[in-house]
Amino acid sequence: MNDKRLHDSRFMKAVRCEPSDTTPVWIMRQAGRYLPEYMEVRSKVSSVLELCRRSDLAAEVTVSAQQILGVDAAILFADLPPLLIPMGFELTYEPGPTIHNPLRLGDDLGRIRAIESADEMAEVMETARLVRKELADDIPLIGFAGAPFTLASYAIEGGGSRDFKHTKTLMYADPGAWNAFIERVVKSLIIYLRGQITAGCQVVQLFDSWGGCLSPGDYRQFVMPHTQRVIRAIEQDVPVINFLTGNPALLPLLREAGGQVIGLDWRVDLKDGWKTVGHDVAVQGNLDPVSLFADLETLRKRTRDVIDATEGRPGHIFNLGHGVMPDMKPENVKALVEMVHEMGQR
Amino acid sequence: MNDKRLHDSRFMKAVRCEPSDTTPVWIMRQAGRYLPEYMEVRSKVSSVLELCRRSDLAAEVTVSAQQILGVDAAILFADLPPLLIPMGFELTYEPGPTIHNPLRLGDDLGRIRAIESADEMAEVMETARLVRKELADDIPLIGFAGAPFTLASYAIEGGGSRDFKHTKTLMYADPGAWNAFIERVVKSLIIYLRGQITAGCQVVQLFDSWGGCLSPGDYRQFVMPHTQRVIRAIEQDVPVINFLTGNPALLPLLREAGGQVIGLDWRVDLKDGWKTVGHDVAVQGNLDPVSLFADLETLRKRTRDVIDATEGRPGHIFNLGHGVMPDMKPENVKALVEMVHEMGQR
Repeated sequence: MNDKRLHDSRFMKAVRCEPSDTTPVWIMRQAGRYLPEYMEVRSKVSSVLELCRRSDLAAEVTVSAQQILGVDAAILFADLPPLLIPMGFELTYEPGPTIHNPLRLGDDLGRIRAIESADEMAEVMETARLVRKELADDIPLIGFAGAPFTLASYAIEGGGSRDFKHTKTLMYADPGAWNAFIERVVKSLIIYLRGQITAGCQVVQLFDSWGGCLSPGDYRQFVMPHTQRVIRAIEQDVPVINFLTGNPALLPLLREAGGQVIGLDWRVDLKDGWKTVGHDVAVQGNLDPVSLFADLETLRKRTRDVIDATEGRPGHIFNLGHGVMPDMKPENVKALVEMVHEMGQR
Repeated sequence: MNDKRLHDSRFMKAVRCEPSDTTPVWIMRQAGRYLPEYMEVRSKVSSVLELCRRSDLAAEVTVSAQQILGVDAAILFADLPPLLIPMGFELTYEPGPTIHNPLRLGDDLGRIRAIESADEMAEVMETARLVRKELADDIPLIGFAGAPFTLASYAIEGGGSRDFKHTKTLMYADPGAWNAFIERVVKSLIIYLRGQITAGCQVVQLFDSWGGCLSPGDYRQFVMPHTQRVIRAIEQDVPVINFLTGNPALLPLLREAGGQVIGLDWRVDLKDGWKTVGHDVAVQGNLDPVSLFADLETLRKRTRDVIDATEGRPGHIFNLGHGVMPDMKPENVKALVEMVHEMGQR
């Protein structure tokens, strides 16, 4: 691994708000079902959980997606909920992740523990090592995990949710139990992410996929201090991308929680979002993923709008505002990457 | 009907930002499944669609919910999608609304028409007449409809959606067809809402339940002018409550679209939201509905937070930030109404 080449890469320069030759781009869920090369590997195993555990295959889909698309970073192939398994949750994929013993009451805490070593997620560490060996020496590897609220709400709801009723009810009715639980999540996250960094990641992203269901008051009281603790512990080693989707009113608090890069979803205009979080941090985003279903002329116009919203400021990492959709045409994603590289030139 | 008593009611004063004895309150979906009295009536018919069509029963649940809760307004029992039936869509409830011939291409427009008379929704008009006769003469009746985007996306997706892929794809790929369709929705909405007003409603609410999936740029370009046309046509007769859920970044545009009252969901702090839309309009909201699952002490504290956020300004209508949940305890909803009336006193 050539540290200097990585440090001077287009992607890492943008993380530090330094100018580079053009705008770096990667795509959330870039190693995913829309890619035939991914589907071929996926067909060799019975579930996404098994794919996450087969480090050789997980490394293969990570590297091949980066190379096929020509994006400026790779992201570890893994999933958010598996970290809950060593913490004491029974998780299966059928095909979506389902937890069979969700935490609902303070009394359930007795069976939940924080992980004590990154070896409890050894297969992810092995994936990171394998990927780092295969990637070009100017392509950073992004590690990641669910943000504390998202992981905790998975564990409490037992799966996806429309209203996060159980999670919020525990938060409101028993803040002591909520804090005791999320502190174990925080401790696990710090160990897990540090392990990913040791294994070869240059940057990590926190995904607060469900945090947008919270009011600003609730986010500040019940969530922000925990996200902050994870970020402070990690950013001693590598930069953190702090991403939350579903509520632009939380952006000032997301900034307060920390991160050298703030991820924006498409619900906010990038220009306004960047102003809100401050021009002293980098931003990542934020094309509406459905734009990729449009004809290329429309896609080009919409991509141009996102790039124009940066007003030529360094510190923009282009991405979608959320993950790429499973029925997307790979050609369109490739075309988008080329457009960004062309339009972002300085 | 005593016009002066209605005009001077607590609710209508708040709509005009005038002070009154205490804060008016109603609850979105107040005539709903959490109420045993509703369930008893509901058991007499096979579906929600049939309940909407049985004006005697729809009127009964409308009036009884207002009286049981002691809220300051009644809202017509009806649903958003049925307006699509006379426009040419095949709709069934199984049990959620499903459209069997969704509009996907410009070519589908041939089979879609705007309604020409409120008589095409005669049962809703009859419900309004029956309700107005039964309500106390200081209790306004709220009429309502889906906002243009929400109705159009129902018609295009064929039901609920996570990503609104078909709707946005039509918008992006064929803006001409999108506009031609939504103009028929707008025309239908104006006729439908005017009919409700003639039949006895003192105010109407537009529900943009799905509009939060849009970026500010897309809302401005593809949606705002249409919502604006509906509001301008209606507010010549009665005040309009303009409510959108799911994206606080759209609030400035919601204000631009119009309405004497702006509905806020719980994702924004009421104080910030009111400042954003301007203190010259009234606001409605915005307690997180899950708060009603908490113990009464916590509920009281959270209710106090919403009321304190108004800073004593007249022009606040208390409500949840979204509909009350089906498994809510009716006692808690009643307790909330009492708390608001007590805390809002001036």
